[in-house]
Parts: sequence; C-alpha cells; structure tokens
Amino acid sequence: MRVLGVDPGLTRCGVGVVDGAPGKPLHLVHVEVIRTSPDADIAERLLGIERGIEALLDEHAPDAVAVERVFAQHNVSTVMGTAQAGAIAIVAAARRGLPVALHTPSEAKAAVTGNGSAGKAQVTMMVTRLLRLPAAPRPADAADALALAICHVWRGGAQARLEAARRAAGWTGGRR
Amino acid sequence: MRVLGVDPGLTRCGVGVVDGAPGKPLHLVHVEVIRTSPDADIAERLLGIERGIEALLDEHAPDAVAVERVFAQHNVSTVMGTAQAGAIAIVAAARRGLPVALHTPSEAKAAVTGNGSAGKAQVTMMVTRLLRLPAAPRPADAADALALAICHVWRGGAQARLEAARRAAGWTGGRR
Repeated sequence: MRVLGVDPGLTRCGVGVVDGAPGKPLHLVHVEVIRTSPDADIAERLLGIERGIEALLDEHAPDAVAVERVFAQHNVSTVMGTAQAGAIAIVAAARRGLPVALHTPSEAKAAVTGNGSAGKAQVTMMVTRLLRLPAAPRPADAADALALAICHVWRGGAQARLEAARRAAGWTGGRR
Repeated sequence: MRVLGVDPGLTRCGVGVVDGAPGKPLHLVHVEVIRTSPDADIAERLLGIERGIEALLDEHAPDAVAVERVFAQHNVSTVMGTAQAGAIAIVAAARRGLPVALHTPSEAKAAVTGNGSAGKAQVTMMVTRLLRLPAAPRPADAADALALAICHVWRGGAQARLEAARRAAGWTGGRR
C-alpha cells in the first residue's frame, strides 16, 4: 500500500510518500515541502499547491491520501490557510477516485511514537527509525507528513474494512 | 463584465452570476445554491462543490469570480468548512486564469445597502431592487452571493486597475 501524507499549509505544505503494510517494513518513496510565497495572492498560492499535489499523484500514484485533520481552535492566525490547502489536497485526490483519510496530529504522533502528545524531535526520530533512514528526513518540517502517511498505512487497512462494511450497510459517516 | 459571486459553505454554497458595469444597470444571469449532504464525507462534499462551480464556469463563462473572505474568528464551528469550500471555488477560477477577488461580508453589504452591518432582509431587498427582479431571488440564501457579485462589479474596475499598477510596479499584495 502506497500512501501520500499531506501536512497542509499555505507557506509550507509537507508531503511524504510511504510504501508499507501493517506488520511489514516501511519504505520512504518521496518527501518534500511544497512552498508558496506569502507575497503571492491566495488564488496563485492555492494553484501552486494544487500543481504540486497533482505532480506527486502523477509521479508516485499512491493508493490513498492521508491529510492532517485541522481544528478551528488551533492557531487561529494560520488555520484558514491550513484548511484551504487541505481542501486542495483532498479534492485533488477525490477527483482521481483515491480514498482520502483525515487523521489528527495526535493520531499521527501516537502512531509513530506511542504518545499522542510527543514533541517534534521524538516524531522525527521515530519517522527516521521506522523508515530506516540513515539520517532525519529533509526538509525537517516534512516529518509530520511522513508520520501521517505511516499512521495511515497502519490504520488504513482496518479503517478501509470498517468503511466498506458501513457503506455495505448503507450507513455513511462524516469521515472515512 | 460578468461576475460569479460565491458565498462559500459545505452544506449550502450560494452562487450568483451578475452582468454589469459601474454606472450601468445590473442583470441577473443565474442564481442557485450548491448543496452537499452533511452525511457525506469531506472528500465527496468538496468534489460536489467543485463540480457545481465548474459547471457554472462552463455554462456562464464569467470574467471574474468574487468569493466571500472568511475570518477565522467568526463561527468557529463552520469556519473550517467555509474555508475549504472557498478554496475550491478560488482554485477552480484560478485554474482557468480568471481573476479572483475576495470581499468581506461587510464590503458586500455596504456595496448594496450603503451599510456594512445591514441585516439579511435589507440585503435581499436591495439585491432584488438593484437587479430589478419581480420578487426576491430564490433560493433566499443565495442573496449574499448576488450581493458579492454586485459588490465586485462596482469595485472590480477600480481594484483591477490598482492591481495592474501594483504588478507593474513589482509589488504584489496578499490579495487582489
């Protein structure tokens, strides 16, 4: 299973592609930060993020996309941009019929460190270890996107089966 | 000048297309509310909004798109969905090279009523009058999208000239 993790942001949008399956070793496929200039207008910035995401989907053909779930109560000054960038990633995946999952930052941290409130250094260390990298992934602020992708690899199978069961039963929740 | 006004929302996304120019009579071209089900997952909902906006752009070929500027401090429970839906409208327009403008609710209200804190009834009454409609536009909650489009018709010319001057001077602001 190949997962694209997206840590959305207007100025820095972390993206990481990971191959794996529950109980199997994980492989880093690609990691980068899509950047847009704070000086550009919002339309130009969202278009830049869309182009970056589309290029990744074309090149790496993930089976699923995991996007960080944003909460309105966090970081009021940046939350709008985060929600906007996240929406672009979600719809780019949905347009191709790819399953999209939202995971909270706590879920991603708990997946890789066992602790939902782990700090950045701990998350980076575990991402480096789990992907068996010789050094911490660069750019450093893309570690969250990789944690999100790993979280989805490990949770994705169970969630997908639950979702399929729900849909078969005619019940659709507000998330998948 | 033909303007598509978008009052973004996940459950109800108001859209209105208006023809006009500063100092000329306004014409209603189209008005509707794009709806998505709160029971659907976010990917499906954003895709539904994208399809609705794309269909409008195809059918009515506006010269510009005006989207309501959302503030994080308002309505925390719905602001995320509003930001997400707005992002979809912004990027759909930008992808076609259409100019996108953001106007605040106060700017739209002030444009049609002269009062930036006018109530819903007053905005609807003035939209009805300015578009010379025999009755209030339906659906009722699309009046804000029409006010936004009218606001842009009246402000758009001046803004576009200012923007062109800024760009010519090598200065780009965070909005246009």
